[in-house]
Amino acid sequence: MQTPTPDQLEVLTDMVISVGDHGLITDIVPSASHAAPVDVALGDGAVVLPGLVDTHIHAPQWPQLGTGLDLPLEEWLFAHTFPLERSLCDPDVAAEVWPHLVTNLLAHGTTTAVYYATIDVATTTMLAETCARLGQRAFVGRVAMDHPEGTPEGYRDGSADDGIAATRASIEAIDTIGSPLVSAIVTPRFIPACTDELLAGLGELAEASNTLVQTHCSESDWEHRYAIERFGVTDTDALARFGLVRRGTVLAHGDHVGDDDLAMIGERGAGIAHCPLSNAYFANAVFPARRALDAGVPVGLGSDIAGGAEPGLLAQCAHAVTASRYLDDGVDARLAPSQRGVGGARLDIVAAFHMATRGGADLLGIPVGYLEVGRAFDALVVDPSADSSLRRWDVDDDRRYFEKVARLARPSDIAQVWVAGRQVR
Amino acid sequence: MQTPTPDQLEVLTDMVISVGDHGLITDIVPSASHAAPVDVALGDGAVVLPGLVDTHIHAPQWPQLGTGLDLPLEEWLFAHTFPLERSLCDPDVAAEVWPHLVTNLLAHGTTTAVYYATIDVATTTMLAETCARLGQRAFVGRVAMDHPEGTPEGYRDGSADDGIAATRASIEAIDTIGSPLVSAIVTPRFIPACTDELLAGLGELAEASNTLVQTHCSESDWEHRYAIERFGVTDTDALARFGLVRRGTVLAHGDHVGDDDLAMIGERGAGIAHCPLSNAYFANAVFPARRALDAGVPVGLGSDIAGGAEPGLLAQCAHAVTASRYLDDGVDARLAPSQRGVGGARLDIVAAFHMATRGGADLLGIPVGYLEVGRAFDALVVDPSADSSLRRWDVDDDRRYFEKVARLARPSDIAQVWVAGRQVR
Repeated sequence: MQTPTPDQLEVLTDMVISVGDHGLITDIVPSASHAAPVDVALGDGAVVLPGLVDTHIHAPQWPQLGTGLDLPLEEWLFAHTFPLERSLCDPDVAAEVWPHLVTNLLAHGTTTAVYYATIDVATTTMLAETCARLGQRAFVGRVAMDHPEGTPEGYRDGSADDGIAATRASIEAIDTIGSPLVSAIVTPRFIPACTDELLAGLGELAEASNTLVQTHCSESDWEHRYAIERFGVTDTDALARFGLVRRGTVLAHGDHVGDDDLAMIGERGAGIAHCPLSNAYFANAVFPARRALDAGVPVGLGSDIAGGAEPGLLAQCAHAVTASRYLDDGVDARLAPSQRGVGGARLDIVAAFHMATRGGADLLGIPVGYLEVGRAFDALVVDPSADSSLRRWDVDDDRRYFEKVARLARPSDIAQVWVAGRQVR
Repeated sequence: MQTPTPDQLEVLTDMVISVGDHGLITDIVPSASHAAPVDVALGDGAVVLPGLVDTHIHAPQWPQLGTGLDLPLEEWLFAHTFPLERSLCDPDVAAEVWPHLVTNLLAHGTTTAVYYATIDVATTTMLAETCARLGQRAFVGRVAMDHPEGTPEGYRDGSADDGIAATRASIEAIDTIGSPLVSAIVTPRFIPACTDELLAGLGELAEASNTLVQTHCSESDWEHRYAIERFGVTDTDALARFGLVRRGTVLAHGDHVGDDDLAMIGERGAGIAHCPLSNAYFANAVFPARRALDAGVPVGLGSDIAGGAEPGLLAQCAHAVTASRYLDDGVDARLAPSQRGVGGARLDIVAAFHMATRGGADLLGIPVGYLEVGRAFDALVVDPSADSSLRRWDVDDDRRYFEKVARLARPSDIAQVWVAGRQVR
C-alpha cells in the first residue's frame, strides 16, 4: 500500500518485488507471473509499506522525549534542552544514546532520518556511523550556532569562522565513513541562533560542497517576528538571501510562512518538514499543509523529537490529519462556526502518508518513499498479531485498512524493516 | 505515581501495598517497615499507576477503529457506523468482537470501562459477561434510540415503550450476572435519536432502579443547536428536564456547553467524559476542560472508540494536553496572536492523568483511580524494556519520568494489570 501522490492510494496485491545488488528495486510483478522461488515470503495478512522518511529529528533530545512539555518554551530550551544537547558532546553519552535512538526509530519503520546532531564534530560523526552500522538511511547535521543572544554560554560556536570550519570538517568526516546510506547536511540551527557571518558562510559552504541544508523557519510567532525585526524581511526571505533556501533545503515547521514565502520555497525546490505534534506545543498555530501541497511545495513529515513527544512517523500521520481538522474547524466553541477555523484546510490520511514517505523523499531528492523499479527497497512489513488493534475485520476494505495501518501501526505490529534491500529489523 | 487532584503529582517510592479479600487496599507502607515477605515484588524500574477509567467507549465500533475518519459525519454514521453496530446484535459476531476489545483495552491498562453496547439486550449482556470473565470493571449500557429521524431503519427501538422495556430488561440481565465488577448504565444514545417519551421513561427508570446514566451532550455545533431548536433550551437543560442529569451521569463530550450548563452539571453531581481525540474529528471545537475543572465539574477522560481513533487512555492523556494547547494558542497564523486562542485553557499532564484516573472514578462514584486504603486495587505496572522509548535516563527526575510514562506507555511497556486485586494481564 502506498501513495504516489497526496491524493492517491495504490494497493497492489500478491506481488513479487525483486531487489538488485545496490538495494534498488529491479522488478515488481504479480506473483502468478513470477516462476522462481522467492527469498522472503509474507503471510496473507502482511502489508508492505514504503519506508518512512522523518525529515526533522533532534537526536540529542532523545532522552527527554515526552518530558517538559508543560514548561514555557524559554525554560524548556535553556533549563532542559540545551544542557542535554551539550551532554551529548560527550562520546560516552553519545555511545549510549545514538544506538538507542536509531534502533527505536528503525523499529517504528523510520528508514530515512534527517537529524540535528550536536555542535561537536566527533559525536556528530558517531551518529552518522551509528546509522551506517544499524542500516538507517540518514542525513546528519552538525549544528551551527554562534549568536551570543540566541544560544547558551558553553554550547555555541566560538565564532562564525569556527562554526563554518567545524561544519566543513563534519561534512568531510561523514563523507569519510564511506557509507551510501549517510550524508552530511548543513545545519544552521535557526536564524536567532546565528550571526549574519555564520549564515552567509554556511550558504557558501552548501553551494561549494553541494550539500543539503536544514534549518528552522517561521516556527512560532516569536521566531517569525524575530527575522522581520532583524532583517526587515521574513524568515524565508532572509534565509534565501544567505543562500540557504536551495534545492532540497529542509525548512522545519513553517507555520507562519505566507503565500509569498511558500511560492519562493517551491520555486527554489526547497520544502517544509511539517511537524504536527510539536507544533501544538511550540508553534502557536497549525501549519497549513493542504495549502502548501496545493501550491506545489514539497512537504515532508517530521517527528521533531523531542519537541514532538512521540517517536515514529505513523503517529505523526495521524497527528497531521488531526491538526488539519483543528485548523479547518477551529477550536473556540464560543465563536460562530464561520468565524472559528480556516475552511479547506483538511488533510486526509492519504495525503499525510504521502508526506511521510514520497513527500519527504522528493523533498530530499532521494529515490525512496515509493516502491517502484529504480527506487531503493526501503520498506516496512506490517503483520499484526491476532490481538492487535490492527486486526483486519470483515468490514475493512483496502482503503479502510490502509487508514487503520497508517494511523495505528506501532513497533509491535511491524514485523520487518528494510533499508536498501537489507533487513535491518 | 498518581494524582490526587488535577494539580498534584504524588510519588511514593519503595512501598508495600496490601490488598484484602474484596480487592480493597488495606495498607500502604514503606517496604522498610513491612517485615513479612511480599507476594509480588517489582523491579527497580517499575512504576505502579492507578488503573485507567475510560468513561466513553462505543464497543460495537471496535472493528472500525482508526477508519473512516476522512468521511463526513453523516456518511461515517449511516454508511459505516450504524450498519456495524447492527451487526454486533448477532451473538456470533459479538462473541468474536467483545473479547478482542476487552483484552486489548486491559492491555492498555483500562481497568474500568464505560460502554455503549448495542440496542440488543442479549449481546449487551454478553459484553457485561465478557468484562466479568476477563476481569474488567465496567458499566455496560444497552443503547436506547427510537427517533425515526435520528436513527437508521432497522437499528432502532420499535417504540419508546420498547426502548424502556428493553433497558429495564438489560439492567436485570446484567444484575443477574452477579459480578461485583459489572453494572448496567441507562443509555439514551443522544437527544436527536430519542423521542420525548423515551427520554422521560429512561429518566424515571434510572431514578426507580438507582442506575447511572450516560448520553452525549452538546458534542458538535449540530447537536448543540438541535436541542435548542427542538426544546428551546440547551442539551444539558433538556436532559435535566427528563431526569437524566443525575449524580454520576456521564455526559460525553460537552464541547459546546455554556457556563450555565457547566454549573448545572456540577450542582447535580453529573460530569463530562472528555474525549479529546474524537473531538478533533466530530465536535467542531475543543472542550474547555480547564474551565470545567476550575468550575468544580467532575471530568473523566474517554477514548470514544471509534470516533476516537486510538485505544487506551494514556494516549488520550497526551491528546488532552495537546487539545488544550490548540485551544489556548489557537490555530490560524493569519490572525493576531491575541485574536487566535482562548488564554488560560492549558491543561498539563498531571491534570490529564487525574481525569484519566480519579476524575473518572469520582464522576462514576466508584472507589478506584487512586491508590489509598479503602479503594480497590485497580492498577497497572509499567516496566519498559531496555529498548523502549520509556527508558529512564539520568535526566529524568520523578516529575519528568511521570510525564514520559503518562504520555507514552503502551501495552508493550505495561507488564501487569490488576483489577480488584486480581491480576488480569
